[in-house]
Amino acid sequence: MAFRGSEIISKNLRVDGHRLVGRIEELAQIGGLEGGGVCRLAFSDEDKQAREKVVRWMTDLGLDIVIDRFGNTVGIRAGQEEGPPVMMGSHIDTVETGGSYDGALGVLAGLEVIETLNDANIGTRYPIAVAFFSNEEGCRFQPDMMGSCVFTGVLSHEEASKAVAPDGTTIADELERREIGGSANPGDLKARAFLELHVEQGPIMEAENLQIGVVEGVQGISWSEINLKGVSNHAGTTPMHLRHDAGFVAAEIATYVRKLARDIGGGQVATVGVIELHPSQINVVADQAKMTVDLRNLDENLLLQAEHKLEQYAAQSAKNEGVDIEISRLARFQPTPFDTGVINLVAKTAENMGFGIKRMSSGAGHDAQILAPSCPTGMIFVPSRGGKSHNIEEYTDPDEIAAGANVLLGVALELAE
Amino acid sequence: MAFRGSEIISKNLRVDGHRLVGRIEELAQIGGLEGGGVCRLAFSDEDKQAREKVVRWMTDLGLDIVIDRFGNTVGIRAGQEEGPPVMMGSHIDTVETGGSYDGALGVLAGLEVIETLNDANIGTRYPIAVAFFSNEEGCRFQPDMMGSCVFTGVLSHEEASKAVAPDGTTIADELERREIGGSANPGDLKARAFLELHVEQGPIMEAENLQIGVVEGVQGISWSEINLKGVSNHAGTTPMHLRHDAGFVAAEIATYVRKLARDIGGGQVATVGVIELHPSQINVVADQAKMTVDLRNLDENLLLQAEHKLEQYAAQSAKNEGVDIEISRLARFQPTPFDTGVINLVAKTAENMGFGIKRMSSGAGHDAQILAPSCPTGMIFVPSRGGKSHNIEEYTDPDEIAAGANVLLGVALELAE
Repeated sequence: MAFRGSEIISKNLRVDGHRLVGRIEELAQIGGLEGGGVCRLAFSDEDKQAREKVVRWMTDLGLDIVIDRFGNTVGIRAGQEEGPPVMMGSHIDTVETGGSYDGALGVLAGLEVIETLNDANIGTRYPIAVAFFSNEEGCRFQPDMMGSCVFTGVLSHEEASKAVAPDGTTIADELERREIGGSANPGDLKARAFLELHVEQGPIMEAENLQIGVVEGVQGISWSEINLKGVSNHAGTTPMHLRHDAGFVAAEIATYVRKLARDIGGGQVATVGVIELHPSQINVVADQAKMTVDLRNLDENLLLQAEHKLEQYAAQSAKNEGVDIEISRLARFQPTPFDTGVINLVAKTAENMGFGIKRMSSGAGHDAQILAPSCPTGMIFVPSRGGKSHNIEEYTDPDEIAAGANVLLGVALELAE
Repeated sequence: MAFRGSEIISKNLRVDGHRLVGRIEELAQIGGLEGGGVCRLAFSDEDKQAREKVVRWMTDLGLDIVIDRFGNTVGIRAGQEEGPPVMMGSHIDTVETGGSYDGALGVLAGLEVIETLNDANIGTRYPIAVAFFSNEEGCRFQPDMMGSCVFTGVLSHEEASKAVAPDGTTIADELERREIGGSANPGDLKARAFLELHVEQGPIMEAENLQIGVVEGVQGISWSEINLKGVSNHAGTTPMHLRHDAGFVAAEIATYVRKLARDIGGGQVATVGVIELHPSQINVVADQAKMTVDLRNLDENLLLQAEHKLEQYAAQSAKNEGVDIEISRLARFQPTPFDTGVINLVAKTAENMGFGIKRMSSGAGHDAQILAPSCPTGMIFVPSRGGKSHNIEEYTDPDEIAAGANVLLGVALELAE
């Protein structure tokens, strides 16, 4: 194969967007739902079929296939030198009523990059690979991003295989029954770098009419549940100053949560998705309230600050009303910043191609955040129409898909030099 | 019987508090619940038994009994002149888990006033009567205060008798089956004045350590339901400025409702007892919210102002967030002011007896508000421990009960001159 400078190549070389979209549509047939959308739960029959199809495509492209015992699958295109490959990839499992793009795009765009290199007879210094990781969605078996956790050694194969579905089936059962696992040991294969092209799953890029999201990292997440206990009283006979209204405190905290996001600013998001009052009657002051708060930020210090401000405000609001408060942390994940070199390379490549870009963080979790501590990692976002994902209406325009795949091509080529 | 000036009499004459409390406890046995409290739903077997007991007491006191076709029952003690009686009274039905005082106190204190006059051999210029009205609580058959509505002609006997319980039984069925109705036509008997002694059902008097509540009227009530429709979105990937969060608007309105009560001040109360979010998930921005607002004030103009401010604020909050809003009025009752002469007489009598008083409004509905348009009407409150009512823990101290009955005695005597 010919070997030329990556800059020159990426200036001229372009993926075949039509071919890529064709593969996305073909894969979406497996587990396809009536009325659109896909149901392809991890380790299901549909997952097994999809794995076989993608492996066939990999084989057709001449890749060496490595499947580890947990089913994580990598197709490798040799480079001029030995060593860990520049890896592109994502996952091919979906949620129960998912779309065609979440996960599949990152895997099939990786194949498209490789086919484009093959077609142009272009070699790279280091190997280039495309991977899909098992059970990214974590629907039937928790936790999510499980395959990449096993791949990187964050979670052992043995531990992960014990995960139990609601019906009592374990992952070990499914791996055996469907012959999903391979012979490689998780952790044996390393990546030189990792790149994940993914749909945004949010509305920002569409709203700002941008083609490429340069993902700087995955937001940290803090989930809290707040339980308030006041006194139930008659709405007519109890003057305001004698109330201990758990519902009022919940409302005041929920109102503050919005202000908190505004005060911290930047990418801080804050959501109260649950408010439940008891006894929930029009003429009775609530004696109990339960609410949840979801805080996310790419900056760990700002996330800590948000948690602290929330706790301070909530405690003060409860105290003012004479209501007991209990705050419990339901979940906490630190932010995962991506590699500055990769981030800048994604931005430069996209700009060179003439795309409108936005540096942004990911509010959802991705395999890339699991790979990030082990190798230079980055993500590329393309827009999601209406911000919809995990939804049968998930859609990204073919031109936008091609744009994302072209940036992936350019960045992978550069990293493979 | 002897006839002396009422001022002189009420200075010296006192009810027998022990006898009154004894009757309250005896009546509470009918429908008594294990662990305390009373269940004596209107038109039930227990109601029938209680009616018979009170009528027997009336008869023992030498009263003429008038029972109308709806079961409203009046015992009349003749005066030196003919004409409508000065009427004391309330109701003897309870809610499902009620206490011993709500309603019963006003009826049995009326009996105690009459027995006190009998014992002292004191005559009055005009007749004095004690009444109990059917179905004040409106638990099984709506609306509440039904008997007094029939008594005063606000509601026809025929219309009221059609009310249906959840099991399909009508009031007409129950009146016939239990032989509750009498032969008098509702509306034939008028009152010269009406006095209702009642437990406060709120915490104000206990908190301020006062014996007598001088009730200036019954608050008007405005019940609204607010439905909000926004857009459901991912809590991580949707930046704050692109949200249409129905839950946030609900919280903001609920927070404002407290401010509204404070701004209007005086006796204004405002309660959000219900907030329901959809889909009610920790990581999903709510696309729907339902909430209720209960506003009450004794002043109709202030109540109108509260409604107007609420609507303005809610509409603006929804607009700011890009959320659709629908406000519907679930119920609306105008305030009922009591007779100034009776109010002042209650205050003066209580002060002359050395009791600490508070001029206040009633946040709950009472038979007195139905009688008020037809004759000079007033109410006397005694404290409720912990503000509890419609609750098996309802309790008023025997001394406070005696205090209320003595004020009732003094006021009734004055009005009967």
